[in-house]
Amino acid sequence: MQFRPDLDSTSEVPLYRQLGAYVQRLIAAGDLQPGDRLPPTRELAGQLGLNRTTVSAAYEWLESEGLILGAVGRGSFVLGQSAESQGAPTPAQTIDWSRSLTPSMFASSGSSAAANVVDFSSSRPSEQLFPLDDFRESCAEVLAHPRLQSLLQLGSPLGYPALRSWLLDRARQQGFAGPGDDILITNGCQQAVDILRRALTQHGSKVAIEEPVYPGLRNLFLDSGAELIGVPVTHDGMDLSALRRGLDAGARVVVITPSFQNPTGATMPTAARAALISMTRNAGAVVIENDIYSDLVYHGTKQPKLKSFDPNVILLGSFSKIAFPGVRVGWIIAPKAVISRAAELKQLTDLHTDQLSQAFLLHFAETGRLAKHEAIVIAAGREKLRAVEQACAQSLDTCRFTVPDGGMNMWLDLPDGLDSGALRGLARQAGVDYLPGRYFSVSRSLDTGLRLSFAGLTPVEIRRGIGILGDVVRNATTSRDEASRPTLAFV
Amino acid sequence: MQFRPDLDSTSEVPLYRQLGAYVQRLIAAGDLQPGDRLPPTRELAGQLGLNRTTVSAAYEWLESEGLILGAVGRGSFVLGQSAESQGAPTPAQTIDWSRSLTPSMFASSGSSAAANVVDFSSSRPSEQLFPLDDFRESCAEVLAHPRLQSLLQLGSPLGYPALRSWLLDRARQQGFAGPGDDILITNGCQQAVDILRRALTQHGSKVAIEEPVYPGLRNLFLDSGAELIGVPVTHDGMDLSALRRGLDAGARVVVITPSFQNPTGATMPTAARAALISMTRNAGAVVIENDIYSDLVYHGTKQPKLKSFDPNVILLGSFSKIAFPGVRVGWIIAPKAVISRAAELKQLTDLHTDQLSQAFLLHFAETGRLAKHEAIVIAAGREKLRAVEQACAQSLDTCRFTVPDGGMNMWLDLPDGLDSGALRGLARQAGVDYLPGRYFSVSRSLDTGLRLSFAGLTPVEIRRGIGILGDVVRNATTSRDEASRPTLAFV
Repeated sequence: MQFRPDLDSTSEVPLYRQLGAYVQRLIAAGDLQPGDRLPPTRELAGQLGLNRTTVSAAYEWLESEGLILGAVGRGSFVLGQSAESQGAPTPAQTIDWSRSLTPSMFASSGSSAAANVVDFSSSRPSEQLFPLDDFRESCAEVLAHPRLQSLLQLGSPLGYPALRSWLLDRARQQGFAGPGDDILITNGCQQAVDILRRALTQHGSKVAIEEPVYPGLRNLFLDSGAELIGVPVTHDGMDLSALRRGLDAGARVVVITPSFQNPTGATMPTAARAALISMTRNAGAVVIENDIYSDLVYHGTKQPKLKSFDPNVILLGSFSKIAFPGVRVGWIIAPKAVISRAAELKQLTDLHTDQLSQAFLLHFAETGRLAKHEAIVIAAGREKLRAVEQACAQSLDTCRFTVPDGGMNMWLDLPDGLDSGALRGLARQAGVDYLPGRYFSVSRSLDTGLRLSFAGLTPVEIRRGIGILGDVVRNATTSRDEASRPTLAFV
Repeated sequence: MQFRPDLDSTSEVPLYRQLGAYVQRLIAAGDLQPGDRLPPTRELAGQLGLNRTTVSAAYEWLESEGLILGAVGRGSFVLGQSAESQGAPTPAQTIDWSRSLTPSMFASSGSSAAANVVDFSSSRPSEQLFPLDDFRESCAEVLAHPRLQSLLQLGSPLGYPALRSWLLDRARQQGFAGPGDDILITNGCQQAVDILRRALTQHGSKVAIEEPVYPGLRNLFLDSGAELIGVPVTHDGMDLSALRRGLDAGARVVVITPSFQNPTGATMPTAARAALISMTRNAGAVVIENDIYSDLVYHGTKQPKLKSFDPNVILLGSFSKIAFPGVRVGWIIAPKAVISRAAELKQLTDLHTDQLSQAFLLHFAETGRLAKHEAIVIAAGREKLRAVEQACAQSLDTCRFTVPDGGMNMWLDLPDGLDSGALRGLARQAGVDYLPGRYFSVSRSLDTGLRLSFAGLTPVEIRRGIGILGDVVRNATTSRDEASRPTLAFV
């Protein structure tokens, strides 16, 4: 179209604004439509006898109003105000993200610990123990192999076939996988739970989980609208009477970490495992056994897996707690029907797990390097646990706790009246950090409790940290006692 | 408890079955409870004056009935039949997986192509082009660095910081990311869409997507209960009148691949991009721009990204289409509010993307190896495209198609009356495979259409495959014409 603006060079309104307002009116009237290309500045300037900078300024103003957009090397295009909306142009709607985004269901655990603080807040292995040279050597062998080419190509949603065979064969040899089972590789256990959530629950499904529980597990179900039934964890794991009530109330999925539970460190005895399986079988409930800590036994022997009691149990495993959590490889061993649906969901969620990482971990495991590393981790864990035991006995005698036989975490209840959330600030100032109990809550108040994650620390750090925590608790107890003493006593 | 079975050694019923039946009655009566431990076989045999193998046989029978379970080294435990359920023992309920699992919403694309078939069915890069030695060298450099230790430890849900900076800086330099944007690393683009689906839609949300569309995208939304509005794709990308109807009908999320769309290969011209953004802005709809093919330009120049027209656009990128799809790294560049919620969901879904792979791809990119590889891929793509053009013109002159200027895929419509699904069997027998149109359908019949994915093949394979396809189409057209000719003509 021809541009015929009625420009007044004597007006107080600068020419570029007059030209801009003219184009704005064309857009508002629908004479210019979204997608229409404006004449190049040089061309329009020549046509109208204007300086080219005047036209450029008009286009810049229109762009700042969101009415046009300049695409480098392609000219300027009309964006705003379609023909339907008559009248004065209004700025295009911007998106109110607080309304467009689905709401978050939970709060974060707070900022991470400052330097020089003994940090008991993270359940992760010690990176000082990572066998870097062994890992480098193992990776170099994988990279040198001609099969690298196929590892870099798209793979199967089920996972890297050689890793799947190795893990499933091992599970069969150890007696907890049967002929009806199959395996799916996931990005660690967290994704395994996410996929099973989608395979087994819908909005409103009732799911029994431990309480206290690892928040990543609770939040996953909360975010998808499941109804959570928190089953208290005692020294011997899930309280079975409470579990029975949960099953009676309609829970059809039970998610449980029977060995070295996070955050309590509790492990179910064999008889309790049998009793639990009897209950869930009678109720027709699906059991998801989170088995990521069970190899980390520092004292005593391993308990049989729930899956060895009932082939319907869905077992989750991972390399992350023994080897390298930054390399995201876990797995689900379950009846074939479950794996088939889970693989479908895995393909939808991210096609498949990184193939190179799967090949790295397989080679690290099948060359015996993993077993060698595991022995070192367990020996180190024994030392850490001894430090925990001694330091707790010495410094935290007013607290209630049970030192576990393995894993990465233990639970501690402060003396009555002390709140672990309120105490955390003082603890951090004094040089020790932990996660307060309420962070692990499903429906109960866990304000006196706290989690100590000891696996990432050295025995020296553990002793120092628990010593500091003991001082903090003693001071807080003294202040509390003084505050609650009747004022008259001072008269 | 004491075991006092009334065993009759003269009975026809073998002793082990008598003993087994006795224990079964104890369990049914509730005298033995789930979790109770049975006496060791040696002990019970001594007590009852039986041979130990008789007791073992009884326990084996009980185990085969699912009533007890032997845990190696710990003895046998009662599983079945709690005290509440009186009467004769019934086998414990087994799980009906067809009822416990959420239903699958879609069918698979059928088995993969046989050997010796020119396979146009998979949209993936050619593994023959993978620069293995460059990649090996790059990985070796990453592995040798002391930061390997921290790469193997748990990382941030947002992704590896150095990779995030590199990608975001590049996006800012190229003008499509602004100060209000942030970045999240995902396991390829598929996971980016999955996370955004959870961040932006709920059950019943209306989502506009292209039709035909990549099934992995459609199925993801279908599986989560979104209502899909298929917007037809023309030679110039999304039909904007149809999109407007979709927005009027309530679509608040638009997912679009504006450059070299999968499966059609269509690319939106600049003006259409501006018009689309004008529409979605007026409607307050969120645009997800799937930008994974836009660098693969074999002819002409790159179109501006939708995100450069509107900062609210959510942009998805990936290394997979240029580098290595087996190494799962993609990203989302979007306003900070979106990234914040997406990072929360990323943490829920799998904590974070594999750190080693992120570091490998970053180093491969920042050392210039990616750019070098990209140049080779594009030069090869140009040759492949030329082969497609020539072969189609020569052999498929009765079909309708538009050869794209880049990417990996093109769409072909068979002459009227031919069904691409029905023809596929003949095509495979003849030595060529493709994906039929119905596989990409949202709500329309696409039976005459098919997708040819050419990027994974060599020019020689492309010419041979399209030649074979031409023969198949010609033969099918002839058979159809003969079949539809009036029978009288033969008399």
